Amino acid sequence: MAETVFSKILRDELPCHRVYEDAHVLAFLDINPISRGHTLVIPREPAERLEELSEEAAAAIGRVLPRIARAVLAATGATDWNLLQNNGRPAHQDVFHVHFHIIPKHADGSGLGVGWKSSKLQDGDTLAKEIAAKL
Amino acid sequence: MAETVFSKILRDELPCHRVYEDAHVLAFLDINPISRGHTLVIPREPAERLEELSEEAAAAIGRVLPRIARAVLAATGATDWNLLQNNGRPAHQDVFHVHFHIIPKHADGSGLGVGWKSSKLQDGDTLAKEIAAKL
Repeated sequence: MAETVFSKILRDELPCHRVYEDAHVLAFLDINPISRGHTLVIPREPAERLEELSEEAAAAIGRVLPRIARAVLAATGATDWNLLQNNGRPAHQDVFHVHFHIIPKHADGSGLGVGWKSSKLQDGDTLAKEIAAKL
Repeated sequence: MAETVFSKILRDELPCHRVYEDAHVLAFLDINPISRGHTLVIPREPAERLEELSEEAAAAIGRVLPRIARAVLAATGATDWNLLQNNGRPAHQDVFHVHFHIIPKHADGSGLGVGWKSSKLQDGDTLAKEIAAKL
């Protein structure tokens, strides 16, 4: 995988506003937040996309998300929030090292905008079997 | 926590288009998908919001997300995708049992719409310390 700005942050070659770290995970403030408290949670393991991350690194991130989220909410006074993780440029990924966004939704409306055009599931039985067959 | 439609699915009292399950996690197709392959991943542990979920249940979900995502992508032919998890009605949560959305972004543009109004981080040092102090 190509070097990213997060590789440099992980090696302490670039500064960040650190909020949490352990052997597998680093969390720091997004320098271009979409709401107050917008925090990034990244694995130390290099991977561009979540589907390429090892199960161990993915479990380590999952484990700390509730704790980091509680701290972000407590510090900012928000109660509602979104977790977003983007894979690929058409899906709004900007830095090609896996990162999870913790985005508080504040009373002033700041936070993640969600566009949601749903339809009724048509071929659920077939599609579920096709996905399960790939596991 | 109040009973939800997912509680009934977990107890097999309502059907679902199942794609994966283990001791901690169930994954099934969203019946109102915003793109083909839109899949929900939920913990068996009852919790309304991710910040209330146990570390063990959160780790168990984290661990299987890469694998389930690979299967969704392989079955649908998508390469790009978003992971979204909403907490609270203002943050677009609709069912009050923790759920992660795996949403493929297809070439026809179907998938998650992301609204993103960012600004420059102003008081990063102070805010990072305030969050870290709550951990």
